[in-house]
Amino acid sequence: MTEKSFKRDLSSDNSTKGLVLVFTGEGKGKTTAALGTAIRALGQGLKVFICFFMKGEYPYGERKILSKLPNVTIASFGQENFVNPSKPTDEEISQAKQALSASHEAILSGKYDLVILDEINVAAAFNLIRVEDILQLIKDKPASLELILTGRKADPRVIHVADLVTEMLKIRHPYDKGIPGRKGIEY
Amino acid sequence: MTEKSFKRDLSSDNSTKGLVLVFTGEGKGKTTAALGTAIRALGQGLKVFICFFMKGEYPYGERKILSKLPNVTIASFGQENFVNPSKPTDEEISQAKQALSASHEAILSGKYDLVILDEINVAAAFNLIRVEDILQLIKDKPASLELILTGRKADPRVIHVADLVTEMLKIRHPYDKGIPGRKGIEY
Repeated sequence: MTEKSFKRDLSSDNSTKGLVLVFTGEGKGKTTAALGTAIRALGQGLKVFICFFMKGEYPYGERKILSKLPNVTIASFGQENFVNPSKPTDEEISQAKQALSASHEAILSGKYDLVILDEINVAAAFNLIRVEDILQLIKDKPASLELILTGRKADPRVIHVADLVTEMLKIRHPYDKGIPGRKGIEY
Repeated sequence: MTEKSFKRDLSSDNSTKGLVLVFTGEGKGKTTAALGTAIRALGQGLKVFICFFMKGEYPYGERKILSKLPNVTIASFGQENFVNPSKPTDEEISQAKQALSASHEAILSGKYDLVILDEINVAAAFNLIRVEDILQLIKDKPASLELILTGRKADPRVIHVADLVTEMLKIRHPYDKGIPGRKGIEY
């Protein structure tokens, strides 16, 4: 934690610190809620770091826009393939560890006001990283930094230490009817 | 509905039509999930219309970014004030009706691939517009158009006709602890 990281208040209320937000659950809206928050933060002049833990180089539309905006840094790791939680490959584990390391560095750097760790909950649930690693990231967070953790299956220990938790509850999803993901909407 | 509105497919699968998505519930992430989807859509070259039903001229960070991007049109109505659902003012009703009219026009225009109606569910729940008006918008939607409706208290009739519904379930929210909204995160 650096002194520098305390320089900016996210609110006119100086007592307000950066919080830990978790978007989890089986419904649509976790990554997009984080991305929407990134856009909001960028619009207010904040600096944003986004680490995609498990989405590889898939051509998500959001990256094309975000990479053109100032004040946002993107790091992307993992593969699009299905991970077998009971038998993750060495490469999958290596990618997740790299993502964790890049995230830790960004969090400690004092350069950012908002850090988004996309699908980090899934990385832990699939045994690519340890829940303890996530708890350590949260512990090392500068007080002023806002941290968003997304992904299904957030661990109860992560939920316990978070300030805000939304479960995106799937009431209905077109995948259930066999309708494929639409370009520009699902990716 | 115009012929023109059929010109673009949202997926390489021609059988895929634009769907109706509802983000509702008491938790954080409804508007931001819609905004994140807008960013994703814009990144894929789609055209986006966003109507804010109940947020007035409040200086939300997202507008500053969105207004600089090509292919996105924003319309904003309503006031920041609390609406009393049992006694909405003439001005509140007038603003909501204007929002509805602008939305209907955008939906019928054939100009957009994604239309976001932010807080429209609340506008109906607070008796500023009728649920029947929302159902009519959905009915009039061109087949290729993706439509996102956000806001707490989505009516069961709207949920019934939607293709995708996520309830943003509040597991924990810092408002409950009296922590105020942080600039760049909550607005």
